[in-house]
Amino acid sequence: MQPTERTQVRRLPERGHYDRETINAVLDAGFLCHLGFIHEGRPVVIPTAYGREGDTLYVHGSAASRTQRALAEGIDLCITVTHLDGLVLARSGFHSSMNYRSAVIFGKGKQILEDERKAHAMAVVSEQIFAGRWAEIRPPSPQELKGTSVLEVPIVEASAKIRTGPPKDDEEDYAMTVWAGVVPVKHGWGEPIPDSRLPKGIPVPEYVKKFRW
Amino acid sequence: MQPTERTQVRRLPERGHYDRETINAVLDAGFLCHLGFIHEGRPVVIPTAYGREGDTLYVHGSAASRTQRALAEGIDLCITVTHLDGLVLARSGFHSSMNYRSAVIFGKGKQILEDERKAHAMAVVSEQIFAGRWAEIRPPSPQELKGTSVLEVPIVEASAKIRTGPPKDDEEDYAMTVWAGVVPVKHGWGEPIPDSRLPKGIPVPEYVKKFRW
Repeated sequence: MQPTERTQVRRLPERGHYDRETINAVLDAGFLCHLGFIHEGRPVVIPTAYGREGDTLYVHGSAASRTQRALAEGIDLCITVTHLDGLVLARSGFHSSMNYRSAVIFGKGKQILEDERKAHAMAVVSEQIFAGRWAEIRPPSPQELKGTSVLEVPIVEASAKIRTGPPKDDEEDYAMTVWAGVVPVKHGWGEPIPDSRLPKGIPVPEYVKKFRW
Repeated sequence: MQPTERTQVRRLPERGHYDRETINAVLDAGFLCHLGFIHEGRPVVIPTAYGREGDTLYVHGSAASRTQRALAEGIDLCITVTHLDGLVLARSGFHSSMNYRSAVIFGKGKQILEDERKAHAMAVVSEQIFAGRWAEIRPPSPQELKGTSVLEVPIVEASAKIRTGPPKDDEEDYAMTVWAGVVPVKHGWGEPIPDSRLPKGIPVPEYVKKFRW
């Protein structure tokens, strides 16, 4: 997509990406976003779960959807997804950095009102984390649907920002004897902890076993 | 501190914490925040590094500090730090959740103008990640100081939100035969990758070796 005034990466523009494939890859690698919105004239950022389906992002958004505006024309959101891949130890503070992949989506978030569409959006968010689980758990009751707020945001104005590789130091600093390089970040999952009230003999599902960052 | 209208945790209030010790513990366990601000009337959220020193947070904020207002009275910021500790697999979508520790700080971010104070703030951000490294690397040049924007934010209006433990299901759902429990999240560091131009014989520093989430 075309970068807009907002999505154009200004600082270090070589890190900016605007193609849908790159943006989707960053979104699909995660399930936790930081949702930004304006509440009473001031910025608010909350961590929340999301799911992508085609050109739509669904986010849990109880805090963001308090206002009546969210029901009508939608409220301005900024949804940011960040994957930290490594710490970049350069020979100077200025060139010290992080390796990361991030995506930023700007858009109007509209609250989903119809029960059926809301249940579908909840399924998309759930499947983003554990694909296959939604069909196994109890579907939401009418009260639960009422008590859950899901916002839908079209992925129209978006960008990704990616840094990879070693530090890029000033030429004269390469002679320094301080250690420099990259410390990779590893994300993973520990041994699943079965609930104490789980009936005996229920195995850990495949979608948990194969879940790896 | 006293919860304010903004920091009071409304949804699931038992997860809210307002004591300084808890908030500091969440802040001190990380170094990457999501910085929210308003740009041309709309919310923007960017990932950036931070450091805490006493009652002050320092954040890298080139994007947030474009406006002249940041130089004068400061701009409204929301700084959110999130540590994901586990995925909580309940028997229903409604009770499915995540275990996490998050802190949200609301405040005016003022750009630091004096070179000496700015260099100090950069040191605090650096030390938040690798304590002891700042003294070993090349200090910032006058041009680099000029090219770096650091915002300072007093930690006055803040809250933490923490969820731990197993799923809490509806009583009648405990009879279900779907797997339920917690999948812990593990963060860690991979083997450090020395820069290809690192002179021979420079060992990996202690602050890298002992760095563990």
